[in-house]
Amino acid sequence: MARIFGHIKGQPVGTTYNNRRELHDAGVHAPLQAGISGTGKEGADSIVVSGGYVDDEDYGDTIVYTGHGGRDANTGRQVRNQELSDPGNAGLVRSELEGLPVRVIRGRNPDSPYAPTSRLRYDGLFRVESHGAKVGIDGYRIWQFTLAKIPEEGSTTAAPRSSQTTLEGFADTPGPPSVIETVVQRIVRSTKVVQQVKAWYNHECQICRLTLSVAGGLYSEGAHIQALGSPHYGPDVVENVLCLCPNDHVLFDNGAIYLSDELKVIDAPTGEAKSALFIHPSHRIDPRYVAYHRARWTTGTARG
Amino acid sequence: MARIFGHIKGQPVGTTYNNRRELHDAGVHAPLQAGISGTGKEGADSIVVSGGYVDDEDYGDTIVYTGHGGRDANTGRQVRNQELSDPGNAGLVRSELEGLPVRVIRGRNPDSPYAPTSRLRYDGLFRVESHGAKVGIDGYRIWQFTLAKIPEEGSTTAAPRSSQTTLEGFADTPGPPSVIETVVQRIVRSTKVVQQVKAWYNHECQICRLTLSVAGGLYSEGAHIQALGSPHYGPDVVENVLCLCPNDHVLFDNGAIYLSDELKVIDAPTGEAKSALFIHPSHRIDPRYVAYHRARWTTGTARG
Repeated sequence: MARIFGHIKGQPVGTTYNNRRELHDAGVHAPLQAGISGTGKEGADSIVVSGGYVDDEDYGDTIVYTGHGGRDANTGRQVRNQELSDPGNAGLVRSELEGLPVRVIRGRNPDSPYAPTSRLRYDGLFRVESHGAKVGIDGYRIWQFTLAKIPEEGSTTAAPRSSQTTLEGFADTPGPPSVIETVVQRIVRSTKVVQQVKAWYNHECQICRLTLSVAGGLYSEGAHIQALGSPHYGPDVVENVLCLCPNDHVLFDNGAIYLSDELKVIDAPTGEAKSALFIHPSHRIDPRYVAYHRARWTTGTARG
Repeated sequence: MARIFGHIKGQPVGTTYNNRRELHDAGVHAPLQAGISGTGKEGADSIVVSGGYVDDEDYGDTIVYTGHGGRDANTGRQVRNQELSDPGNAGLVRSELEGLPVRVIRGRNPDSPYAPTSRLRYDGLFRVESHGAKVGIDGYRIWQFTLAKIPEEGSTTAAPRSSQTTLEGFADTPGPPSVIETVVQRIVRSTKVVQQVKAWYNHECQICRLTLSVAGGLYSEGAHIQALGSPHYGPDVVENVLCLCPNDHVLFDNGAIYLSDELKVIDAPTGEAKSALFIHPSHRIDPRYVAYHRARWTTGTARG
């Protein structure tokens, strides 16, 4: 059965379950024992946050979740280092790199005010924001994942701290010194179609052939040739998507490079062809989207 | 006077003004005639959206705004091509590249249900989402900027369409075919401190020395060495920030590269030094943050 990322139909946030078997049967969290459901190839679709893991921290909308492995099954204490190559841990890295939502189920935990007092409760979708290693309380290396709640549609609760856009921007009115005024500089979005295109290239950039390799995975971004949304309304289809490294994605989205009808990569300032776009045999690119993107950056210029 | 990005104290969203002079005096939009307040170096901090520009489109939370230049002052029609090098247009590009918020003031426009019926009204902060050229209704090249409303803190209105995170994720339950299910893959944030560090390097990457040049500007990203937010709580100070290209930002934030105490760039898989970090004479980097970042990716490994 395909792994489902996102809410499960008929299982609204707040639904409770008597045990792991019921969670499994509802499709909310498939494994009967493991805390992480996922693999490095697909990503992790759900986790169970339970009491008894000494290094976990639960702040409600932010959870610091300790990865899988190296624990004594009876005591829950770490007895070995954890490895990022563990399938569950690699799954959380993949979800972080792709922005895939992770279902969070909380179990009973007397130490956490956010945990249910009994049973298991589905608490909604979280984004994996970051991860890193540290020496845990038991003296072994653990990998920890910071997850932030994705606000529910129509929810009136504040956005999670970490995705806060400070509306004062860079206003010079001094705030409390603890406030870090941040703005969102760039948002990279992904879709199921983008995931498919990336899979063809295994994250290799179609322009520069670079593959970014990070701890636990590969990284690339999907670029819609004719942009999504107003006023371009490009479609979310594989014929309109490129697999690019972040640098070439910025250049392509901002008109520093565009494509010729022969799918050569053109340097906008000079109009010179730099190289041919690398294209997987299964990947058809529609010249209409290429022409639309090119016109967006060359209309009314000498090369228009 | 320094250009202020964000809300102006004492001028809440919805405030109305009799004329451009009042807008100027309130500090909401400084120029008395120009529709765009800004420069390519600083960014654009405010725009006035008025009726009479034939190519503008107003969808409420999304505005397609035509840039400056090439218009007949009396008729408002285009009589020449617009140039992205026009200071106002370059300012909007800079605000897009840096994620700077733009104050939007709407004037009277009988064609728009979102415009006030009289006076000028401050309608809050928008993000510049994208830009591009097209041939306008009058037959000349125009540059258009798509702006999306930044939701107000505590607002119960839905997020703008374009920043929507579809909570169904990639769930296989089929939705209406017009729905594009997107997830947020990556968010790049900036702060005033980050802006200062970028200015030292003029957007040149401290690791690979690359400067990304796009239509209308240069692009780089600020990387906090000890990450902001839970559980790292790195400070937002210049001693904790690097100016990087997007590729090296992804690699640095995900542990593929880290720094030695001598500020050499280390390739994590091999532990080999690749090069020395490029450092501007004014830029002091605090070794404590470097050590924190390194420990996050090397704890418990042979190179830890």
